[in-house]
Amino acid sequence: MCSSAGESDPRSRKLNKSSVKVNGTHSTALPHAATKLETFSTSAVAFVEDVAGERSRQNIPTEKQNADPFRQGLIVEGGVGYRQTVVIRSYEVGPDKTATLETILNLLQETALNHVWMSGLLGDGFGATHGMIRNNLIWVVTRMHVQVDQYPIWGEVLEIDTWVGASGKNGMRRDWLIQSRLTGVVFARATSTWVMMNKQTRRLSKMPEEVRDEISPWFIERQAIKEDVPEKIIKLDDDAKYVDSDLKPKRSDLDMNHHVNNVKYVRWMLETIPVQFPENYELSSIILEYRRECGSSDTVQSICEPDEGSIPEDDNISIIKDFSLAPEILDGCGLSGTFDKWPTKYTHLLQIKGQQKYEEIVRGRTTWRKKLFNTY
Amino acid sequence: MCSSAGESDPRSRKLNKSSVKVNGTHSTALPHAATKLETFSTSAVAFVEDVAGERSRQNIPTEKQNADPFRQGLIVEGGVGYRQTVVIRSYEVGPDKTATLETILNLLQETALNHVWMSGLLGDGFGATHGMIRNNLIWVVTRMHVQVDQYPIWGEVLEIDTWVGASGKNGMRRDWLIQSRLTGVVFARATSTWVMMNKQTRRLSKMPEEVRDEISPWFIERQAIKEDVPEKIIKLDDDAKYVDSDLKPKRSDLDMNHHVNNVKYVRWMLETIPVQFPENYELSSIILEYRRECGSSDTVQSICEPDEGSIPEDDNISIIKDFSLAPEILDGCGLSGTFDKWPTKYTHLLQIKGQQKYEEIVRGRTTWRKKLFNTY
Repeated sequence: MCSSAGESDPRSRKLNKSSVKVNGTHSTALPHAATKLETFSTSAVAFVEDVAGERSRQNIPTEKQNADPFRQGLIVEGGVGYRQTVVIRSYEVGPDKTATLETILNLLQETALNHVWMSGLLGDGFGATHGMIRNNLIWVVTRMHVQVDQYPIWGEVLEIDTWVGASGKNGMRRDWLIQSRLTGVVFARATSTWVMMNKQTRRLSKMPEEVRDEISPWFIERQAIKEDVPEKIIKLDDDAKYVDSDLKPKRSDLDMNHHVNNVKYVRWMLETIPVQFPENYELSSIILEYRRECGSSDTVQSICEPDEGSIPEDDNISIIKDFSLAPEILDGCGLSGTFDKWPTKYTHLLQIKGQQKYEEIVRGRTTWRKKLFNTY
Repeated sequence: MCSSAGESDPRSRKLNKSSVKVNGTHSTALPHAATKLETFSTSAVAFVEDVAGERSRQNIPTEKQNADPFRQGLIVEGGVGYRQTVVIRSYEVGPDKTATLETILNLLQETALNHVWMSGLLGDGFGATHGMIRNNLIWVVTRMHVQVDQYPIWGEVLEIDTWVGASGKNGMRRDWLIQSRLTGVVFARATSTWVMMNKQTRRLSKMPEEVRDEISPWFIERQAIKEDVPEKIIKLDDDAKYVDSDLKPKRSDLDMNHHVNNVKYVRWMLETIPVQFPENYELSSIILEYRRECGSSDTVQSICEPDEGSIPEDDNISIIKDFSLAPEILDGCGLSGTFDKWPTKYTHLLQIKGQQKYEEIVRGRTTWRKKLFNTY
């Protein structure tokens, strides 16, 4: 972008470079989580772009690092996996004092990028390998699956492991495992699938041999979530049970690529379910299938259909029998609400109104379990 | 709250304790940032409440710590100040790749609480001193002033210092200084004022002698922002230039006390200014005066009045003269928009519709400066 003030200001040079990079965007669905994994023969090149002093402010290494003391990251698993210690912060938890799903998604993105940072070859952070750049390719995420066994609480110390592997002939898998540092108990597992897209034509591409040669040394076979046949998500039509229309992205919803961030997608999806539901249920699994990116000027529709067959057996009757609670007590402690029967599986779709028809942004599938206590 | 499932599940005991604490709330405006500072004679008491195992999951110390390796925190300034190293994460920056104001506010809250954590006497995190508990008192924040000299960028390593001091006879001040760890350059300064409120009557209280004796050993005179006469914010009426009505909190906007979090307040305030404005201007200062808390069922009105006298001199003419840019270039790089003249000072008010009249939540005052480059 161009200057809107004279060049005399000392900040001019810095910001100028910054804005050129940001606006010359490598746009993609969830591009911020794209992965840059390279062999290390050309690391000296990395500082060529450092006109702005940005790389030194970001403390970006030009060689592979085995430890990142500031982010508390380590290279593990024989030099190819990444592990980061993270403490759940006060503002990352919801009213029930447990980390929100948004927090977990944010931490997945963050650790993926920090893994790449450790490679010593992080460019602007969305980057492709040198081989991909030569072929004008970028990474796009096509699928994400997160399973939450238990939500960590405020102040809890986590260890987040992430690694990459092959996905078919032309794709890459990135997995994560989130555990308690104290006990090793698993909080969450996640897996994602990435493919390459031509930056100009916006069409998917095969993985060129030279790119495979660059990234395959990093591949690990281990899978965080075993999926013999990954669940496919059906496309909803407009007569779904819950519909929220006219959702508009705000500036604070945009990521560095000027697209709506992944967390906002999920928030739109989940907020389409009536508000009473998450008072008594917590999300145990989410699958996302990405179709296209959503820009700042798009208007979004979120639709959601419960699986009516997924209503669980009611297990409250025993409490009544055992304790003979008076109705006013049930009301007073919010228990009466839990007698509502809710399905525990939902299908979701976010779409934008195109010229001719709606265009899909992302399909979703969520599974929920009853909270043991109403902590809303 | 009561159980909504049988006690046989192994998670029952944990969650039960958790929810009792969360719902037996010490509600207050911005209560999560309240400060617990105590003398250390009764530290053994702290584990009494640990029925839930929560304190051990949260790794809460029962004695004063001088270093927190997981949060990278240190006690400094002769044993009373706190310093934490923080790296700006990928999801904490906006489209221009700099940390958002929300991120800065979150980090202020987080470091304040971690300062208290280091004291070895953190209870549930919102807590008062033992003396305050004996007097049934809680902390409430009444004022916050944040000045941002420069926004840190993604990946930048910060050092955040925070400390407390006296504020008049009955109040406490908490200050912060955010600097670059690499260069020491100051990114932001902040100061806040806290008073005590009776938990039952919800009325402000004098600081009892025993409480003063507990917290005054922690006081430091140094001020992050010199304010001889703190600026007062006028109350707006309904005929202000910009009004957003019917703003409703969502579940994700609530903090651990089930009140709307501070960051959401600020977002509501700033989003009332037309969206074109923050494309070319960045916030350099915000003052907040808190009046009452906002719950999940309140409907909020955000009103905003620009200071028409605060439109700066236009400095774009020289660019045109110097570079003779063609109009299509100006358009193409978004420069033409910068010719709009915008005031640089705004007064804000958030209020909720009460039974009889509107009730103020928070007044605000923001100051902005022109961005040197349109990085939107």
